[in-house]
Amino acid sequence: MMNFEEKLEHSLDHLEQSRVKEAMLYSLCAPAKRLRPRMIYSVLKGYGLDESKGDYCALAIEMIHSYSLIHDDLPCMDDDDLRRGQKTCHCQFDEATALLAGDALLSEAFGLLMKTDCSAEIKNDLVSEFVNAIGANGMILGQMLDLISEEQQADVQMCSKIDILKTGCLFSLAMISGCLLAEKKTDKEVWRKIGYKLGLAFQIQDDCLDVSSTAQVLGKSLSDEKNHKSTFVSELGFKKAEKLYQQYFDEIENDLKMCNIQIEPVMDIINQIRHRDH
Amino acid sequence: MMNFEEKLEHSLDHLEQSRVKEAMLYSLCAPAKRLRPRMIYSVLKGYGLDESKGDYCALAIEMIHSYSLIHDDLPCMDDDDLRRGQKTCHCQFDEATALLAGDALLSEAFGLLMKTDCSAEIKNDLVSEFVNAIGANGMILGQMLDLISEEQQADVQMCSKIDILKTGCLFSLAMISGCLLAEKKTDKEVWRKIGYKLGLAFQIQDDCLDVSSTAQVLGKSLSDEKNHKSTFVSELGFKKAEKLYQQYFDEIENDLKMCNIQIEPVMDIINQIRHRDH
Repeated sequence: MMNFEEKLEHSLDHLEQSRVKEAMLYSLCAPAKRLRPRMIYSVLKGYGLDESKGDYCALAIEMIHSYSLIHDDLPCMDDDDLRRGQKTCHCQFDEATALLAGDALLSEAFGLLMKTDCSAEIKNDLVSEFVNAIGANGMILGQMLDLISEEQQADVQMCSKIDILKTGCLFSLAMISGCLLAEKKTDKEVWRKIGYKLGLAFQIQDDCLDVSSTAQVLGKSLSDEKNHKSTFVSELGFKKAEKLYQQYFDEIENDLKMCNIQIEPVMDIINQIRHRDH
Repeated sequence: MMNFEEKLEHSLDHLEQSRVKEAMLYSLCAPAKRLRPRMIYSVLKGYGLDESKGDYCALAIEMIHSYSLIHDDLPCMDDDDLRRGQKTCHCQFDEATALLAGDALLSEAFGLLMKTDCSAEIKNDLVSEFVNAIGANGMILGQMLDLISEEQQADVQMCSKIDILKTGCLFSLAMISGCLLAEKKTDKEVWRKIGYKLGLAFQIQDDCLDVSSTAQVLGKSLSDEKNHKSTFVSELGFKKAEKLYQQYFDEIENDLKMCNIQIEPVMDIINQIRHRDH
Protein backbone atom coordinates (compact mmCIF):
# COMPACT_ATOMS: atom_id res chain seq x y z
CA MET A 1 0.00 0.00 0.00
CA MET A 2 1.37 3.39 -1.02
CA ASN A 3 1.21 6.27 1.43
CA PHE A 4 -0.20 9.62 0.31
CA GLU A 5 3.20 11.06 -0.64
CA GLU A 6 3.87 8.08 -2.89
CA LYS A 7 0.42 8.39 -4.44
CA LEU A 8 1.17 12.06 -5.18
CA GLU A 9 4.47 11.12 -6.80
CA HIS A 10 2.66 8.68 -9.08
CA SER A 11 -0.38 10.86 -9.76
CA LEU A 12 1.13 12.24 -12.98
CA ASP A 13 2.51 8.97 -14.34
CA HIS A 14 0.09 9.19 -17.27
CA LEU A 15 1.77 12.38 -18.51
CA GLU A 16 4.50 12.53 -21.12
CA GLN A 17 7.89 13.55 -19.72
CA SER A 18 8.36 17.31 -20.15
CA ARG A 19 9.60 20.42 -18.38
CA VAL A 20 6.06 21.26 -17.35
CA LYS A 21 5.55 17.82 -15.78
CA GLU A 22 8.82 18.24 -13.90
CA ALA A 23 7.65 21.59 -12.56
CA MET A 24 4.26 20.17 -11.58
CA LEU A 25 5.90 17.37 -9.58
CA TYR A 26 8.44 19.76 -8.06
CA SER A 27 5.69 21.85 -6.47
CA LEU A 28 3.17 19.10 -5.85
CA CYS A 29 5.60 16.87 -3.98
CA ALA A 30 7.29 19.58 -1.89
CA PRO A 31 7.05 18.74 1.84
CA ALA A 32 3.66 19.95 3.11
CA LYS A 33 1.05 19.24 5.73
CA ARG A 34 -1.56 17.88 3.24
CA LEU A 35 -4.34 19.37 5.37
CA ARG A 36 -7.00 19.23 2.66
CA PRO A 37 -6.44 15.57 1.73
CA ARG A 38 -6.43 14.71 5.41
CA MET A 39 -9.76 16.50 5.81
CA ILE A 40 -11.30 14.32 3.10
CA TYR A 41 -9.93 11.18 4.72
CA SER A 42 -11.07 12.18 8.20
CA VAL A 43 -14.63 12.89 7.06
CA LEU A 44 -14.77 9.50 5.33
CA LYS A 45 -13.45 7.85 8.47
CA GLY A 46 -15.99 9.71 10.57
CA TYR A 47 -18.72 8.25 8.38
CA GLY A 48 -17.23 4.78 8.92
CA LEU A 49 -15.94 4.40 5.37
CA ASP A 50 -12.66 3.21 3.96
CA GLU A 51 -10.27 6.14 3.49
CA SER A 52 -9.06 4.85 0.11
CA LYS A 53 -12.40 5.88 -1.39
CA GLY A 54 -11.16 9.45 -1.13
CA ASP A 55 -7.80 8.93 -2.85
CA TYR A 56 -8.47 10.59 -6.20
CA CYS A 57 -10.38 13.45 -4.61
CA ALA A 58 -7.54 13.97 -2.18
CA LEU A 59 -4.98 14.05 -4.99
CA ALA A 60 -7.20 16.41 -6.99
CA ILE A 61 -7.62 18.87 -4.14
CA GLU A 62 -3.89 18.84 -3.40
CA MET A 63 -3.25 19.62 -7.09
CA ILE A 64 -5.66 22.54 -6.88
CA HIS A 65 -3.94 23.81 -3.74
CA SER A 66 -0.54 23.42 -5.38
CA TYR A 67 -1.63 25.26 -8.57
CA SER A 68 -2.98 28.13 -6.48
CA LEU A 69 0.31 28.46 -4.61
CA ILE A 70 2.38 28.41 -7.81
CA HIS A 71 0.30 31.18 -9.38
CA ASP A 72 0.11 33.10 -6.10
CA ASP A 73 3.91 33.14 -5.86
CA LEU A 74 4.44 34.57 -9.37
CA PRO A 75 6.07 38.01 -9.69
CA CYS A 76 2.79 39.62 -10.82
CA MET A 77 1.06 38.27 -7.69
CA ASP A 78 2.85 37.96 -4.32
CA ASP A 79 6.33 37.69 -5.87
CA ASP A 80 7.61 35.15 -3.36
CA ASP A 81 10.79 33.16 -3.83
CA LEU A 82 10.47 30.73 -0.93
CA ARG A 83 7.64 28.25 -0.39
CA ARG A 84 7.50 25.12 1.73
CA GLY A 85 11.17 25.56 2.49
CA GLN A 86 12.24 25.39 -1.14
CA LYS A 87 12.53 27.81 -4.07
CA THR A 88 9.17 28.74 -5.57
CA CYS A 89 8.32 27.12 -8.90
CA HIS A 90 9.16 30.16 -11.07
CA CYS A 91 12.52 30.58 -9.28
CA GLN A 92 13.43 26.92 -9.71
CA PHE A 93 12.25 26.85 -13.36
CA ASP A 94 11.04 30.08 -15.01
CA GLU A 95 7.87 32.16 -15.00
CA ALA A 96 6.38 30.66 -18.16
CA THR A 97 6.93 27.11 -16.95
CA ALA A 98 5.43 27.95 -13.56
CA LEU A 99 2.39 29.52 -15.21
CA LEU A 100 1.87 26.40 -17.35
CA ALA A 101 2.52 24.03 -14.42
CA GLY A 102 -0.25 25.78 -12.49
CA ASP A 103 -2.63 25.61 -15.45
CA ALA A 104 -1.84 21.93 -15.91
CA LEU A 105 -2.33 21.01 -12.25
CA LEU A 106 -5.70 22.74 -12.34
CA SER A 107 -6.69 20.82 -15.48
CA GLU A 108 -5.41 17.43 -14.35
CA ALA A 109 -7.27 17.73 -11.04
CA PHE A 110 -10.55 17.33 -12.93
CA GLY A 111 -9.16 14.30 -14.74
CA LEU A 112 -8.37 12.64 -11.42
CA LEU A 113 -11.90 13.30 -10.15
CA MET A 114 -13.18 11.18 -13.04
CA LYS A 115 -11.20 8.21 -11.70
CA THR A 116 -12.95 8.33 -8.32
CA ASP A 117 -14.67 5.14 -7.24
CA CYS A 118 -18.29 6.39 -7.15
CA SER A 119 -21.34 6.80 -9.38
CA ALA A 120 -21.35 9.06 -12.44
CA GLU A 121 -23.83 11.34 -10.65
CA ILE A 122 -21.55 11.80 -7.64
CA LYS A 123 -18.64 12.57 -9.98
CA ASN A 124 -20.78 15.30 -11.53
CA ASP A 125 -21.56 16.68 -8.07
CA LEU A 126 -17.86 16.65 -7.23
CA VAL A 127 -17.01 18.60 -10.39
CA SER A 128 -19.69 21.18 -9.59
CA GLU A 129 -18.47 21.57 -6.01
CA PHE A 130 -14.86 21.89 -7.17
CA VAL A 131 -15.81 24.66 -9.61
CA ASN A 132 -17.86 26.50 -6.97
CA ALA A 133 -14.96 26.36 -4.55
CA ILE A 134 -12.12 27.29 -6.88
CA GLY A 135 -13.72 29.56 -9.50
CA ALA A 136 -14.56 33.23 -9.71
CA ASN A 137 -17.18 32.92 -6.95
CA GLY A 138 -14.68 31.09 -4.74
CA MET A 139 -10.91 30.93 -4.31
CA ILE A 140 -10.12 33.06 -7.36
CA LEU A 141 -12.49 35.80 -6.20
CA GLY A 142 -10.63 35.69 -2.88
CA GLN A 143 -7.32 36.18 -4.66
CA MET A 144 -8.74 39.07 -6.67
CA LEU A 145 -10.11 40.80 -3.56
CA ASP A 146 -6.82 40.16 -1.81
CA LEU A 147 -4.97 41.98 -4.59
CA ILE A 148 -7.42 44.86 -4.51
CA SER A 149 -6.99 45.07 -0.72
CA GLU A 150 -3.34 46.01 -1.33
CA GLU A 151 -4.57 49.07 -3.19
CA GLN A 152 -7.41 49.90 -0.81
CA GLN A 153 -6.89 48.97 2.86
CA ALA A 154 -9.40 46.23 3.75
CA ASP A 155 -11.53 46.36 6.90
CA VAL A 156 -12.24 43.35 9.14
CA GLN A 157 -15.33 42.40 7.17
CA MET A 158 -13.38 42.36 3.91
CA CYS A 159 -10.49 40.45 5.56
CA SER A 160 -13.03 37.82 6.65
CA LYS A 161 -14.51 37.54 3.19
CA ILE A 162 -11.08 37.17 1.61
CA ASP A 163 -10.01 34.48 4.07
CA ILE A 164 -13.23 32.51 3.70
CA LEU A 165 -12.86 32.62 -0.09
CA LYS A 166 -9.11 32.01 -0.26
CA THR A 167 -8.88 29.32 2.39
CA GLY A 168 -12.34 28.38 3.60
CA CYS A 169 -13.59 27.38 0.15
CA LEU A 170 -10.96 24.65 -0.24
CA PHE A 171 -11.45 23.44 3.34
CA SER A 172 -15.21 23.25 2.70
CA LEU A 173 -14.56 21.48 -0.57
CA ALA A 174 -12.45 18.84 1.16
CA MET A 175 -15.15 18.16 3.73
CA ILE A 176 -17.98 18.25 1.19
CA SER A 177 -16.04 15.82 -1.02
CA GLY A 178 -15.85 13.35 1.87
CA CYS A 179 -19.54 13.89 2.56
CA LEU A 180 -20.55 13.33 -1.09
CA LEU A 181 -18.41 10.20 -1.37
CA ALA A 182 -20.10 8.91 1.80
CA GLU A 183 -23.46 9.61 0.12
CA LYS A 184 -24.57 11.90 2.96
CA LYS A 185 -25.70 14.78 0.76
CA THR A 186 -28.06 16.10 3.45
CA ASP A 187 -25.04 17.00 5.64
CA LYS A 188 -23.41 18.99 2.84
CA GLU A 189 -24.30 22.49 3.99
CA VAL A 190 -23.13 21.81 7.55
CA TRP A 191 -19.71 20.83 6.18
CA ARG A 192 -19.64 23.92 4.01
CA LYS A 193 -20.18 26.11 7.09
CA ILE A 194 -17.56 24.23 9.11
CA GLY A 195 -15.06 24.55 6.28
CA TYR A 196 -15.61 28.30 5.95
CA LYS A 197 -15.22 28.78 9.69
CA LEU A 198 -12.11 26.65 9.80
CA GLY A 199 -10.60 28.62 6.91
CA LEU A 200 -11.25 31.85 8.73
CA ALA A 201 -9.84 30.52 12.02
CA PHE A 202 -6.80 29.17 10.16
CA GLN A 203 -6.04 32.50 8.49
CA ILE A 204 -6.50 34.63 11.60
CA GLN A 205 -4.20 32.18 13.38
CA ASP A 206 -1.76 32.54 10.45
CA ASP A 207 -1.79 36.33 10.88
CA CYS A 208 -1.00 35.83 14.57
CA LEU A 209 1.75 33.30 13.81
CA ASP A 210 3.24 35.66 11.20
CA VAL A 211 3.74 38.21 13.94
CA SER A 212 5.17 35.79 16.49
CA SER A 213 7.35 33.73 14.09
CA THR A 214 10.16 34.32 11.67
CA ALA A 215 10.27 33.46 7.98
CA GLN A 216 12.64 30.62 8.78
CA VAL A 217 10.17 28.81 11.04
CA LEU A 218 7.25 29.33 8.67
CA GLY A 219 9.30 28.25 5.64
CA LYS A 220 7.92 31.08 3.54
CA SER A 221 8.52 34.77 2.99
CA LEU A 222 6.52 37.25 5.04
CA SER A 223 4.97 38.86 1.98
CA ASP A 224 1.94 40.33 3.75
CA GLU A 225 4.08 42.68 5.76
CA LYS A 226 6.21 43.46 2.73
CA ASN A 227 3.08 44.28 0.71
CA HIS A 228 1.48 46.34 3.52
CA LYS A 229 -1.66 44.21 3.48
CA SER A 230 -4.34 44.54 6.13
CA THR A 231 -4.41 41.52 8.43
CA PHE A 232 -6.58 40.65 11.42
CA VAL A 233 -3.67 41.56 13.67
CA SER A 234 -3.18 44.96 12.04
CA GLU A 235 -6.93 45.65 12.23
CA LEU A 236 -7.84 44.18 15.62
CA GLY A 237 -4.56 43.94 17.48
CA PHE A 238 -2.87 40.65 18.44
CA LYS A 239 -4.90 39.82 21.57
CA LYS A 240 -8.31 40.37 20.02
CA ALA A 241 -7.30 38.44 16.88
CA GLU A 242 -6.09 35.52 18.98
CA LYS A 243 -9.31 35.47 20.99
CA LEU A 244 -11.35 35.55 17.79
CA TYR A 245 -9.74 32.50 16.20
CA GLN A 246 -9.94 30.53 19.43
CA GLN A 247 -13.64 31.33 19.52
CA TYR A 248 -14.09 30.03 15.97
CA PHE A 249 -12.31 26.79 16.88
CA ASP A 250 -14.72 26.37 19.82
CA GLU A 251 -17.70 26.97 17.54
CA ILE A 252 -16.45 24.38 15.03
CA GLU A 253 -16.31 21.75 17.75
CA ASN A 254 -19.94 22.49 18.62
CA ASP A 255 -21.03 22.49 14.95
CA LEU A 256 -19.42 19.08 14.53
CA LYS A 257 -21.43 17.62 17.39
CA MET A 258 -24.61 18.41 15.45
CA CYS A 259 -23.36 16.20 12.60
CA ASN A 260 -24.35 12.58 12.27
CA ILE A 261 -20.75 11.42 12.34
CA GLN A 262 -18.13 9.99 14.66
CA ILE A 263 -16.29 13.24 15.35
CA GLU A 264 -12.88 12.01 16.59
CA PRO A 265 -11.11 11.73 13.21
CA VAL A 266 -12.17 15.25 12.20
CA MET A 267 -11.40 16.65 15.67
CA ASP A 268 -7.92 15.16 15.45
CA ILE A 269 -7.00 17.28 12.45
CA ILE A 270 -8.81 20.38 13.74
CA ASN A 271 -6.89 20.15 17.00
CA GLN A 272 -3.63 19.71 15.13
CA ILE A 273 -4.39 22.92 13.27
CA ARG A 274 -5.45 24.71 16.43
CA HIS A 275 -2.29 23.81 18.30
CA ARG A 276 0.26 24.29 15.48
CA ASP A 277 3.13 26.69 15.99
CA HIS A 278 3.81 27.34 12.28
CA MET B 1 -33.58 32.86 -28.95
CA MET B 2 -30.16 34.23 -28.07
CA ASN B 3 -27.37 33.98 -30.61
CA PHE B 4 -23.99 32.59 -29.54
CA GLU B 5 -22.49 36.00 -28.73
CA GLU B 6 -25.41 36.75 -26.42
CA LYS B 7 -25.07 33.35 -24.77
CA LEU B 8 -21.37 34.11 -24.17
CA GLU B 9 -22.24 37.47 -22.62
CA HIS B 10 -24.62 35.72 -20.21
CA SER B 11 -22.44 32.69 -19.52
CA LEU B 12 -20.96 34.30 -16.39
CA ASP B 13 -24.19 35.74 -14.97
CA HIS B 14 -23.88 33.38 -11.98
CA LEU B 15 -20.65 35.11 -10.90
CA GLU B 16 -20.41 37.92 -8.38
CA GLN B 17 -19.42 41.25 -9.90
CA SER B 18 -15.64 41.73 -9.59
CA ARG B 19 -12.61 42.90 -11.51
CA VAL B 20 -11.79 39.32 -12.46
CA LYS B 21 -15.29 38.77 -13.89
CA GLU B 22 -14.92 41.99 -15.89
CA ALA B 23 -11.61 40.76 -17.30
CA MET B 24 -13.08 37.36 -18.13
CA LEU B 25 -15.93 38.95 -20.09
CA TYR B 26 -13.59 41.43 -21.77
CA SER B 27 -11.55 38.64 -23.32
CA LEU B 28 -14.32 36.09 -23.79
CA CYS B 29 -16.60 38.49 -25.66
CA ALA B 30 -13.96 40.10 -27.89
CA PRO B 31 -14.90 39.75 -31.57
CA ALA B 32 -13.74 36.33 -32.78
CA LYS B 33 -14.54 33.63 -35.29
CA ARG B 34 -15.84 31.11 -32.70
CA LEU B 35 -14.42 28.26 -34.78
CA ARG B 36 -14.49 25.68 -32.00
CA PRO B 37 -18.12 26.28 -30.96
CA ARG B 38 -19.09 26.18 -34.62
CA MET B 39 -17.33 22.83 -34.97
CA ILE B 40 -19.41 21.38 -32.15
CA TYR B 41 -22.60 22.72 -33.69
CA SER B 42 -21.72 21.48 -37.17
CA VAL B 43 -20.98 17.96 -35.95
CA LEU B 44 -24.32 17.86 -34.10
CA LYS B 45 -26.07 19.12 -37.23
CA GLY B 46 -24.26 16.50 -39.31
CA TYR B 47 -25.67 13.82 -37.01
CA GLY B 48 -29.14 15.32 -37.47
CA LEU B 49 -29.41 16.72 -33.96
CA ASP B 50 -30.55 20.04 -32.60
CA GLU B 51 -27.61 22.43 -32.30
CA SER B 52 -28.77 23.75 -28.92
CA LYS B 53 -27.71 20.44 -27.36
CA GLY B 54 -24.14 21.68 -27.78
CA ASP B 55 -24.59 25.10 -26.13
CA TYR B 56 -22.84 24.51 -22.83
CA CYS B 57 -20.04 22.53 -24.44
CA ALA B 58 -19.58 25.31 -26.97
CA LEU B 59 -19.40 27.94 -24.24
CA ALA B 60 -16.98 25.78 -22.26
CA ILE B 61 -14.62 25.27 -25.17
CA GLU B 62 -14.66 28.98 -26.00
CA MET B 63 -13.78 29.71 -22.37
CA ILE B 64 -10.87 27.29 -22.59
CA HIS B 65 -9.70 28.91 -25.82
CA SER B 66 -10.02 32.36 -24.26
CA TYR B 67 -8.09 31.36 -21.12
CA SER B 68 -5.29 29.93 -23.25
CA LEU B 69 -5.00 33.17 -25.24
CA ILE B 70 -4.96 35.33 -22.08
CA HIS B 71 -2.15 33.29 -20.54
CA ASP B 72 -0.33 33.00 -23.87
CA ASP B 73 -0.28 36.79 -24.23
CA LEU B 74 1.26 37.42 -20.79
CA PRO B 75 4.71 39.04 -20.64
CA CYS B 76 6.34 35.80 -19.47
CA MET B 77 4.90 33.97 -22.51
CA ASP B 78 4.47 35.66 -25.92
CA ASP B 79 4.27 39.18 -24.46
CA ASP B 80 1.64 40.40 -26.94
CA ASP B 81 -0.31 43.60 -26.49
CA LEU B 82 -2.83 43.20 -29.30
CA ARG B 83 -5.35 40.37 -29.67
CA ARG B 84 -8.55 40.18 -31.71
CA GLY B 85 -8.11 43.82 -32.59
CA GLN B 86 -8.15 44.99 -28.97
CA LYS B 87 -5.65 45.37 -26.13
CA THR B 88 -4.69 42.05 -24.56
CA CYS B 89 -6.19 41.32 -21.16
CA HIS B 90 -3.10 42.20 -19.12
CA CYS B 91 -2.72 45.50 -21.00
CA GLN B 92 -6.37 46.43 -20.49
CA PHE B 93 -6.32 45.36 -16.81
CA ASP B 94 -3.05 44.20 -15.23
CA GLU B 95 -0.98 41.03 -15.20
CA ALA B 96 -2.38 39.65 -11.95
CA THR B 97 -5.97 40.18 -13.06
CA ALA B 98 -5.25 38.55 -16.43
CA LEU B 99 -3.63 35.58 -14.73
CA LEU B 100 -6.68 35.12 -12.49
CA ALA B 101 -9.13 35.69 -15.36
CA GLY B 102 -7.46 32.85 -17.26
CA ASP B 103 -7.53 30.58 -14.22
CA ALA B 104 -11.20 31.40 -13.66
CA LEU B 105 -12.23 30.79 -17.28
CA LEU B 106 -10.49 27.42 -17.14
CA SER B 107 -12.32 26.54 -13.91
CA GLU B 108 -15.75 27.80 -14.97
CA ALA B 109 -15.56 25.82 -18.23
CA PHE B 110 -15.91 22.61 -16.23
CA GLY B 111 -18.88 24.08 -14.39
CA LEU B 112 -20.64 24.74 -17.68
CA LEU B 113 -20.02 21.18 -18.85
CA MET B 114 -22.04 20.00 -15.86
CA LYS B 115 -25.05 21.95 -17.17
CA THR B 116 -25.05 20.09 -20.49
CA ASP B 117 -28.27 18.37 -21.42
CA CYS B 118 -27.01 14.75 -21.44
CA SER B 119 -26.55 11.75 -19.13
CA ALA B 120 -24.17 11.84 -16.14
CA GLU B 121 -21.98 9.28 -17.94
CA ILE B 122 -21.61 11.48 -21.02
CA LYS B 123 -20.77 14.45 -18.80
CA ASN B 124 -17.98 12.37 -17.29
CA ASP B 125 -16.73 11.45 -20.76
CA LEU B 126 -16.76 15.13 -21.70
CA VAL B 127 -14.72 16.06 -18.63
CA SER B 128 -12.16 13.36 -19.42
CA GLU B 129 -11.89 14.47 -23.05
CA PHE B 130 -11.53 18.10 -21.99
CA VAL B 131 -8.70 17.22 -19.62
CA ASN B 132 -6.93 15.09 -22.25
CA ALA B 133 -7.16 17.91 -24.75
CA ILE B 134 -6.14 20.83 -22.54
CA GLY B 135 -3.80 19.28 -19.95
CA ALA B 136 -0.12 18.45 -19.82
CA ASN B 137 -0.52 15.75 -22.49
CA GLY B 138 -2.41 18.18 -24.74
CA MET B 139 -2.57 21.93 -25.26
CA ILE B 140 -0.35 22.81 -22.30
CA LEU B 141 2.33 20.39 -23.46
CA GLY B 142 2.13 22.15 -26.85
CA GLN B 143 2.69 25.52 -25.19
CA MET B 144 5.63 24.14 -23.21
CA LEU B 145 7.26 22.66 -26.33
CA ASP B 146 6.57 25.91 -28.17
CA LEU B 147 8.49 27.83 -25.50
CA ILE B 148 11.36 25.36 -25.61
CA SER B 149 11.44 25.69 -29.39
CA GLU B 150 12.42 29.34 -28.93
CA GLU B 151 15.54 28.16 -27.13
CA GLN B 152 16.29 25.24 -29.44
CA GLN B 153 15.24 25.64 -33.07
CA ALA B 154 12.46 23.13 -33.83
CA ASP B 155 12.49 20.90 -36.92
CA VAL B 156 9.40 20.15 -39.04
CA GLN B 157 8.50 17.13 -36.94
CA MET B 158 8.56 19.19 -33.75
CA CYS B 159 6.62 22.01 -35.43
CA SER B 160 3.94 19.45 -36.36
CA LYS B 161 3.78 18.08 -32.85
CA ILE B 162 3.46 21.57 -31.37
CA ASP B 163 0.70 22.57 -33.78
CA ILE B 164 -1.26 19.37 -33.24
CA LEU B 165 -1.04 19.86 -29.47
CA LYS B 166 -1.64 23.61 -29.39
CA THR B 167 -4.41 23.78 -31.98
CA GLY B 168 -5.40 20.27 -33.05
CA CYS B 169 -6.27 19.14 -29.53
CA LEU B 170 -8.99 21.78 -29.13
CA PHE B 171 -10.32 21.19 -32.66
CA SER B 172 -10.49 17.45 -31.91
CA LEU B 173 -12.14 18.21 -28.60
CA ALA B 174 -14.84 20.28 -30.31
CA MET B 175 -15.60 17.50 -32.76
CA ILE B 176 -15.45 14.76 -30.15
CA SER B 177 -17.81 16.78 -27.92
CA GLY B 178 -20.36 16.88 -30.73
CA CYS B 179 -19.86 13.17 -31.34
CA LEU B 180 -20.30 12.27 -27.64
CA LEU B 181 -23.42 14.43 -27.34
CA ALA B 182 -24.81 12.65 -30.40
CA GLU B 183 -24.08 9.35 -28.65
CA LYS B 184 -21.88 8.13 -31.51
CA LYS B 185 -18.95 7.06 -29.37
CA THR B 186 -17.70 4.61 -32.03
CA ASP B 187 -16.87 7.56 -34.34
CA LYS B 188 -14.78 9.27 -31.65
CA GLU B 189 -11.33 8.31 -32.88
CA VAL B 190 -12.12 9.40 -36.46
CA TRP B 191 -13.03 12.86 -35.16
CA ARG B 192 -9.88 12.97 -33.08
CA LYS B 193 -7.80 12.34 -36.22
CA ILE B 194 -9.71 14.90 -38.25
CA GLY B 195 -9.30 17.50 -35.51
CA TYR B 196 -5.55 16.92 -35.30
CA LYS B 197 -5.18 17.21 -39.07
CA LEU B 198 -7.32 20.33 -39.19
CA GLY B 199 -5.25 21.92 -36.42
CA LEU B 200 -2.09 21.19 -38.33
CA ALA B 201 -3.51 22.51 -41.62
CA PHE B 202 -4.79 25.61 -39.81
CA GLN B 203 -1.42 26.40 -38.27
CA ILE B 204 0.62 25.83 -41.43
CA GLN B 205 -1.86 28.08 -43.21
CA ASP B 206 -1.40 30.62 -40.37
CA ASP B 207 2.35 30.54 -40.92
CA CYS B 208 1.75 31.22 -44.61
CA LEU B 209 -0.73 34.01 -43.87
CA ASP B 210 1.71 35.56 -41.39
CA VAL B 211 4.18 35.94 -44.25
CA SER B 212 1.66 37.33 -46.75
CA SER B 213 -0.32 39.55 -44.36
CA THR B 214 0.35 42.43 -42.05
CA ALA B 215 -0.34 42.65 -38.34
CA GLN B 216 -3.23 44.98 -39.09
CA VAL B 217 -5.11 42.47 -41.21
CA LEU B 218 -4.52 39.61 -38.76
CA GLY B 219 -5.50 41.76 -35.79
CA LYS B 220 -2.62 40.44 -33.72
CA SER B 221 1.09 41.07 -33.30
CA LEU B 222 3.48 38.98 -35.36
CA SER B 223 5.18 37.55 -32.30
CA ASP B 224 6.58 34.44 -34.02
CA GLU B 225 8.87 36.52 -36.15
CA LYS B 226 9.75 38.72 -33.20
CA ASN B 227 10.62 35.67 -31.12
CA HIS B 228 12.58 33.98 -33.95
CA LYS B 229 10.45 30.86 -33.75
CA SER B 230 10.70 28.10 -36.34
CA THR B 231 7.61 27.97 -38.54
CA PHE B 232 6.65 25.73 -41.43
CA VAL B 233 7.49 28.56 -43.80
CA SER B 234 10.95 29.08 -42.29
CA GLU B 235 11.62 25.33 -42.39
CA LEU B 236 10.04 24.31 -45.72
CA GLY B 237 9.74 27.54 -47.65
CA PHE B 238 6.44 29.21 -48.57
CA LYS B 239 5.52 27.09 -51.58
CA LYS B 240 6.09 23.72 -49.94
CA ALA B 241 4.27 24.84 -46.80
CA GLU B 242 1.28 26.01 -48.84
CA LYS B 243 1.16 22.72 -50.73
CA LEU B 244 1.31 20.79 -47.48
CA TYR B 245 -1.66 22.47 -45.84
CA GLN B 246 -3.75 22.18 -49.00
CA GLN B 247 -2.96 18.45 -49.00
CA TYR B 248 -4.15 18.14 -45.39
CA PHE B 249 -7.41 19.89 -46.26
CA ASP B 250 -7.93 17.38 -49.11
CA GLU B 251 -7.26 14.49 -46.76
CA ILE B 252 -9.76 15.83 -44.21
CA GLU B 253 -12.47 15.88 -46.85
CA ASN B 254 -11.76 12.22 -47.62
CA ASP B 255 -11.66 11.25 -43.94
CA LEU B 256 -15.05 12.89 -43.45
CA LYS B 257 -16.61 10.79 -46.19
CA MET B 258 -15.75 7.69 -44.16
CA CYS B 259 -17.87 9.04 -41.30
CA ASN B 260 -21.50 8.07 -40.83
CA ILE B 261 -22.64 11.68 -41.00
CA GLN B 262 -24.12 14.23 -43.34
CA ILE B 263 -20.89 16.02 -44.19
CA GLU B 264 -22.14 19.40 -45.51
CA PRO B 265 -22.32 21.28 -42.16
CA VAL B 266 -18.78 20.23 -41.24
CA MET B 267 -17.47 20.87 -44.76
CA ASP B 268 -18.93 24.39 -44.62
CA ILE B 269 -16.75 25.38 -41.71
CA ILE B 270 -13.70 23.53 -43.04
CA ASN B 271 -14.02 25.35 -46.36
CA GLN B 272 -14.38 28.66 -44.58
CA ILE B 273 -11.12 27.96 -42.78
CA ARG B 274 -9.43 26.78 -45.98
CA HIS B 275 -10.38 29.90 -47.91
CA ARG B 276 -9.81 32.53 -45.21
CA ASP B 277 -7.40 35.37 -45.89
CA HIS B 278 -6.64 36.14 -42.22
